[in-house]
Amino acid sequence: MKKLITIFMVLTLMSCAEQENSGNTKTHPNLVVTQAGVESMRASLGHVPLFDQSVNETRQEVDAEIENGIEVPIPKDLAGGYTHQRHKLNFFMMQKAGVLFQITGEEKYAQYIKEMLLEYHKMWPTIGKHPAKRSYARGKLFWQCLNDANWLVYTSQAYDCIYDWLDTETITKLNDELFRPYADFLSIENPRFHNRLHNHSTWANAAVGMIGLVMGDEKLVDRALYAFDVDKESGLTDNDGGSLSLKGYKEGGFIAQMDHSFSPDGYYTEGPYYQRYAMYPFLIFAQGLANKKPDLEILDYRDGLLIKAVYTLINQTNTQGEFFPINDSQKGMSLQSRELVMAVSMAYHYGGNDPQLLSIIEDQGRVPLNDSGLTAAKAIAEGKSEPFVYKSIEITDGPKGDEGAIGILRADDLTVVMKYAKHGMGHGHFDRLGFLMYDETGEVIQDYGAARWVNVEHKDGGGYLKENHSWSKETVAHNTLVVNKDSHFDHEVKAADKVAGTPYYFTSTDKLQLTSAKELNAYDGVEMHRTMAVVEIDEIENPLVIDLFSVQAAAGTRYDLPLYYQGHFMSSNQEFENNNILSPMGENDGYQHLWAEAQTKLTGENYQMTWFNNKKFYTITSTVESGDEMFLTRIGANDPNFNLRRDPGMIHRRTGGNTVFASLYEVHGSYNYASERPLNLFTSVENLKILHQSADYVAVQIVLKSGESYQFAFSLNDKDKSSQHTIKTALGSLEWQGVYNFQNLN
Amino acid sequence: MKKLITIFMVLTLMSCAEQENSGNTKTHPNLVVTQAGVESMRASLGHVPLFDQSVNETRQEVDAEIENGIEVPIPKDLAGGYTHQRHKLNFFMMQKAGVLFQITGEEKYAQYIKEMLLEYHKMWPTIGKHPAKRSYARGKLFWQCLNDANWLVYTSQAYDCIYDWLDTETITKLNDELFRPYADFLSIENPRFHNRLHNHSTWANAAVGMIGLVMGDEKLVDRALYAFDVDKESGLTDNDGGSLSLKGYKEGGFIAQMDHSFSPDGYYTEGPYYQRYAMYPFLIFAQGLANKKPDLEILDYRDGLLIKAVYTLINQTNTQGEFFPINDSQKGMSLQSRELVMAVSMAYHYGGNDPQLLSIIEDQGRVPLNDSGLTAAKAIAEGKSEPFVYKSIEITDGPKGDEGAIGILRADDLTVVMKYAKHGMGHGHFDRLGFLMYDETGEVIQDYGAARWVNVEHKDGGGYLKENHSWSKETVAHNTLVVNKDSHFDHEVKAADKVAGTPYYFTSTDKLQLTSAKELNAYDGVEMHRTMAVVEIDEIENPLVIDLFSVQAAAGTRYDLPLYYQGHFMSSNQEFENNNILSPMGENDGYQHLWAEAQTKLTGENYQMTWFNNKKFYTITSTVESGDEMFLTRIGANDPNFNLRRDPGMIHRRTGGNTVFASLYEVHGSYNYASERPLNLFTSVENLKILHQSADYVAVQIVLKSGESYQFAFSLNDKDKSSQHTIKTALGSLEWQGVYNFQNLN
Repeated sequence: MKKLITIFMVLTLMSCAEQENSGNTKTHPNLVVTQAGVESMRASLGHVPLFDQSVNETRQEVDAEIENGIEVPIPKDLAGGYTHQRHKLNFFMMQKAGVLFQITGEEKYAQYIKEMLLEYHKMWPTIGKHPAKRSYARGKLFWQCLNDANWLVYTSQAYDCIYDWLDTETITKLNDELFRPYADFLSIENPRFHNRLHNHSTWANAAVGMIGLVMGDEKLVDRALYAFDVDKESGLTDNDGGSLSLKGYKEGGFIAQMDHSFSPDGYYTEGPYYQRYAMYPFLIFAQGLANKKPDLEILDYRDGLLIKAVYTLINQTNTQGEFFPINDSQKGMSLQSRELVMAVSMAYHYGGNDPQLLSIIEDQGRVPLNDSGLTAAKAIAEGKSEPFVYKSIEITDGPKGDEGAIGILRADDLTVVMKYAKHGMGHGHFDRLGFLMYDETGEVIQDYGAARWVNVEHKDGGGYLKENHSWSKETVAHNTLVVNKDSHFDHEVKAADKVAGTPYYFTSTDKLQLTSAKELNAYDGVEMHRTMAVVEIDEIENPLVIDLFSVQAAAGTRYDLPLYYQGHFMSSNQEFENNNILSPMGENDGYQHLWAEAQTKLTGENYQMTWFNNKKFYTITSTVESGDEMFLTRIGANDPNFNLRRDPGMIHRRTGGNTVFASLYEVHGSYNYASERPLNLFTSVENLKILHQSADYVAVQIVLKSGESYQFAFSLNDKDKSSQHTIKTALGSLEWQGVYNFQNLN
Repeated sequence: MKKLITIFMVLTLMSCAEQENSGNTKTHPNLVVTQAGVESMRASLGHVPLFDQSVNETRQEVDAEIENGIEVPIPKDLAGGYTHQRHKLNFFMMQKAGVLFQITGEEKYAQYIKEMLLEYHKMWPTIGKHPAKRSYARGKLFWQCLNDANWLVYTSQAYDCIYDWLDTETITKLNDELFRPYADFLSIENPRFHNRLHNHSTWANAAVGMIGLVMGDEKLVDRALYAFDVDKESGLTDNDGGSLSLKGYKEGGFIAQMDHSFSPDGYYTEGPYYQRYAMYPFLIFAQGLANKKPDLEILDYRDGLLIKAVYTLINQTNTQGEFFPINDSQKGMSLQSRELVMAVSMAYHYGGNDPQLLSIIEDQGRVPLNDSGLTAAKAIAEGKSEPFVYKSIEITDGPKGDEGAIGILRADDLTVVMKYAKHGMGHGHFDRLGFLMYDETGEVIQDYGAARWVNVEHKDGGGYLKENHSWSKETVAHNTLVVNKDSHFDHEVKAADKVAGTPYYFTSTDKLQLTSAKELNAYDGVEMHRTMAVVEIDEIENPLVIDLFSVQAAAGTRYDLPLYYQGHFMSSNQEFENNNILSPMGENDGYQHLWAEAQTKLTGENYQMTWFNNKKFYTITSTVESGDEMFLTRIGANDPNFNLRRDPGMIHRRTGGNTVFASLYEVHGSYNYASERPLNLFTSVENLKILHQSADYVAVQIVLKSGESYQFAFSLNDKDKSSQHTIKTALGSLEWQGVYNFQNLN
C-alpha cells in the first residue's frame, strides 16, 4: 500500500501542470472512453454486429430523449417520483449522448449535453438540500447523496466526451460553478457520506475522483482515493442531524474501500445484489484510473481483485443469470443489469480476454459503448466465444477471507448454495447455514429475498417495506434452523456482524460435491453444523442432495427447520390434518406472518413429500424421530398491505437435545402439458436411515427403490484428510480415511 | 345425407370383391399414408428440413423402444399406472414404426410391429375385461373402452403400413383372431360405447371403421359410419351393469356424430380442451375415408366442417398457443399437442393450402409423417409461411348454431373471451356470461380450469378430483355473477343443458370490438345481460376493456361478482381491513373453498385496485353503489389434499334489485428487474361514472387523468342498427343510432 501511495504522489506532482490545462490541446476523452478507443470504434462501425446493434439501440433511446426536449425540474420527489426519475434519466442520457458524440461525431449529442449541463449550472445555486428528510446524507437533486453521486459518476463521463469540444469559458463556468461545488458537496460537506467504509462512500469517491480526472483536478482525485482529514478542512459540519463531532474523523477513500470491501475472493459481504450495485463505481472509476493513471496499476491491486470480483458475481447466478437473492435482494436482478453489461466486457478487455466471458456477453445481447465493449463485440464476431463453465466453489467473506464463506455446489443442472458468511451489515439476514437450490427451471428451494418492490411507488414509494424486517430478515423465513422460535442472534445486527460462520470443509470431485460449515454463535449454548452434499448416483436420474443438519444443545430445546419449496403439493406418505380456519403461527420473529395450512405428528421412519413445479417433480425424504411434527405453511398473515407473496413452505418441528435433521432432496421426472404424459413422477428413494449420530460423527444410509443402497458418513470435528475413523453403525463397524465416506453398499 | 348413403352403398357393392383380397396385390398403405404419398416422402428425404427433422426425431424415439424390447403386460392399472402407460406407448410406437417402415423401407420397423401384434394376438383370448370397474364401458387393455379404441385407431395405421409386407397366414390370423374380435368388442359388445352421440363414440366409430378400411371389411366400415341396430345383431348384451334393455337401441355412427357434435362454425360444446381430443378420431378416420373412399367427400360434408373445426380450435388459443380453459380443461394443452400437429397439417393439405397455417406448423416444430405433413413441410421450406391473423369472432354453439356462442375479442395483444354457449354436458361449468382475459404474457383474468392433473398418479390416479365438482364447476369459481350465493341452474347439469345463453350483439370495428349476451335462465326471476367492449383510446397505452353487467331482479337480491386476477396486489384507493384469522366464506356452491383475506365497505364513486404480474401492471376501476362491499379472496379452504391452487381473487358484493356492475380493465406499464425501472405504473383512469341505467339502456362515462372523457352507451333490448335512441344521462340528453354509441366528449 505504501509503495502505491508513493508512486502516485510522484506521478501527481509530475503531471500536475499538464493536467491543469483544460481543453486547449486534445486531452479528452480519456476516462472510460479513450481517444484510441474512439478511433477504433469509428473504424469498426458497420463491421461488428453486436457493437453496431448497441450503438443503434443507444441512438434510438437518446434521439427520442433529444426529441422530447430537456427537462431539469426543481428536485422534489422521493425515489420513484417524477423529479427523481427525471434526473436519473438525465444522467443516463448524458452519458450515452457523450459516447454517441465521440463515435458518430454528430454535434447534436454534444449540444444536448452542453445545454443540459447549463440548465443544471443555472439551477445549482438556487437549490438547497432536497426537501425530503429521510436520509442521513440528504442530496441536492435527489433525496440522498448516493443518487447525487450516481449523477456525477455518469455525468463525468459525458463531460469527458465533450470537454475538448466545449469553449474555455463554458468549461471554466461548469468547472468552477457546478462540478467543483458538487464534488465538494459530496465530500467535504458530507464527510459521513464520503469518508466511510461503505458502498455509499464508494459512489462518493468515484464521483469526486472521476470529475477530478476529467477536470484535471488532482486535489479532488487525491481526496477520492484517500479520503480527507475532517479536522484539517474548513467549514466542516455535518448538516444532517447537527451536533455530531467530526474532529479527527477520517476513514475510507477509494483505496481503503478496495482493501476492506471485498474478500480476497472478490466477495462483497452484503451479497451479490448489492455487490452488483457497489461494483459499478469501483469498476468505472478504476477504468478511468487505468486509462488516465496507468502507473497506479489499479486493476492489478490486491491480486487483480476487481476483475476477480466480476467472476465472483457471475458465479453467484442461477441458470437464468439471476443473482442468488442472499440478504436484502430483489429477485430478478441479473447479468442483464447495466452494471454487469459494463463489468463483464471490462473483465474481458482488461482481464486477459477470457473467451468464456464472451458467451455471457452474447446472452446480455449488448455491449457498453467504450473500448471494452468494442473489444468484446469484435471477439464475439470473430467466433471466439466459449460457454461459461460454472464450477463448484467456496467464496470466502471478510477482507482477509477468514470470516465465513458461501459454498456453491454445481452438478449438471443443479445448484446448491449454502451461506455461512458474515452477516452482511444492515442488509444482512439472520440466515446462518441457510441454503438455496436451483435447477434449470429456476428456484427449487427459495430464499424469500427482500420485501421490497424497488422504485415501485405503489409499495411505500419503492423502498424497503416493514415486512422486510418483520419477515424477510427473520430466521424462520429461511431454510435454516430456528431454535426456540427465536431468530439467530436475537435478530440483533450488531451481534451478528461481530462473528461469521465457520467453514468446515469443502470439496468438489466428479461424483460428489460437498460443503460443510458450523455456526456456534447464533444461539447461546447451541452448536449447529450443516453438511450438504450433491452426489451422482447411477440408478437415479439427477444428482441427489444430502442434507445433514447436526445440532448439539440441551435436552428440551425446540427446533423448527423450515423449507421453502416452490410449487404445488402433490402427495405425502403422511396423513396431514388440514385447517379450514387459519391463524398466525406466532406473534414475532416472523411467525406472525405464517399460517399453518396443515400439520401432522410424523410417524414411521421417514417423512416424504412430493411437489410439482415448472413441469418437474421434487421429493424430500427426511428422517423422523418420535414426537416430530410437520407443518405445511403459507406466508401472508399480518400483512395489511399485501406486501408478501403467498408462498408455501414446510416446518419440521422437533423437541430434543443433540440431534440430526437428515434429508434428501430429489429432482425427478417431468410432465408435458401437450402430451399429458408424466415421466418418473415418484421418488426413487425407498428409505433414509440415520446409522450413527454423535458429537463427532454422522452417518446415513440411503436405500433406493431399485434395491441399491448407499452409505454416507462424515466426521464432524476432524477434517484432516489423513485421519482414520471408525464408528459403530446400525450396519456394523465402519472404517474410513478422511473427512467423509460415500459408498455403494450392494 | 340420403344421397351420400346411396353413393356409398353403390361403391361398397362395386368394390367388395376387390377389397376382400388381402395382401396379394399392392393395395396398402392407403389409410392415412398413401402409396403416392410414400413415394413422395421417400423422394423428399434430405430435401425438406422440417420433415427430415420429424423423421429423425421419430426414428430416435422408435429405435429406443425397439432397443428396449417389446413389453405387452397383462392389463392391470388405471390411467397413469404401468400397464396403462405401456399399452398406450405401444400403440403410439407401432403407428410411428409403420410410417418409418414405409418411408425408410427398413424392415426392422415392420418386424417390430409384427412381433408386437403377435404378442397382442397371443394375449387377446386370455384376458377378459379390465379388472378395474370404474367405467360404464370397461375395456380390455385399458380400464375403459375409450382407451382401447385409441389403441385400435393407432394400431390400424401401423397395420395398414405393413399389410402388404405380411404373409397371408399372419394376416388371416390377425384379422380373424385379433382385429375383428376387437372391433366387435368395441361395437356390438358395447353398444352404449359405440352407438351414442358422444365423443367417446367417435373414437369407437373411428376404431371400427379404420380397421375395417385396412382389412377391407365393409361390414365394419358400414357399422362405423351408421351405427347398428342393437336388436338385429345376435348375442347382444351390455356386460357392463347387466340388465339394461337394448332392444331398438341405435344412435350415432360417424356420420351422425358429424351432424350433431359440432356447430356449423365447428365449435364443440364441451370446449376446446375436449374438442382437441374429440377431433382426432374425426380427422384421422376422415383422412382414411378421403383416401380410400374419396367419393364419400367426407371433407366437404357440412360445408367443410372438419377443416373449419381446425380453424375454430386455433382461434380458441391464447398468445402461447394454449386453449382457453373453458369447462373441464387442464391448462397448458395447446397447439403443440399431437392431435393438433396432425390436424393443422391436414387442414393445410386438404383445406386449400392456407399459408397462415404454416406459421402455426412452424411453431409446432414438427409435422406428422404422412402426406399432409410432407405437403406442409415442403411449403414451409419454400418460404410460403404467413403469420396467422387472430381476428375477433363469435363462434356459435349447437348443431344448428342457434344455441349460444362464445365471443372472442382481439385487439393488439389483448384477448377477451366471453362464454354464453351451451352448458357443455358433463364437462360443463356453471359459468354463463363468464369471461377470460389474456395479454401477450398469458392470463390476466383467469378461468380456474379443471381440478385435475391428467395422468398424474399423485392426484387420485390422474382423474378428476372431487374439488372439480365442489369448486371448479361452481359459479363463484368464475368471473360471472353469483346470485344469492347459489350457482347457476342450482348446479344441475340437466337443467343447464336444456337452455343456452342468448347472443345479443357482436361487432368488430377498427376502434371498438364488442360482444354482448343475455342469460335469462340461470336464476329464476333474474335477467342478466353482459356487454364487454374493447376500445382503442388514443391517450392510453393499450386497448381498454369496458364491462357492463346489467341485472334485472327483485329488490333485496344479493349479488357477488368475482374476478380472478393473476398476480400480486399492488394498491387500492380503498382501505381494506385484513384478516389474520381466515375462515371459509361459506359452506357450499364453492364458497367453502374461499378464504376472505380482506374486506371493505366501498366508499366514494369508484373502486380501483392495481395488481402486478409478469412485469406488467393492471388496474380495475368499478363503479360503487351505496352499501357495496369488496372481498379479497384466496382459494384453498376445505382442500384436504392440496388439490387447489392458492390463487387470488376479489368479489364485489351488492344487495339490490335492478342494477349494473360497471368496470374497466386496463393493462398498463411495465417493470424491468435488471434496470429496476417501472414505466406507467399507475392507471390512466381518473373516474368511471354510470350516466344512465334502466331496463333498456346503460351508459357510462370514462374520465382519464389526461382530462379526456369518453362516453359509451348501449341499447339493451333493441339491436336494430337503424333504430334511433334517446336517453337522459347525467350529462344531458344523448341521441344515437344503432345498438351502441362510443364517443370522445372533449
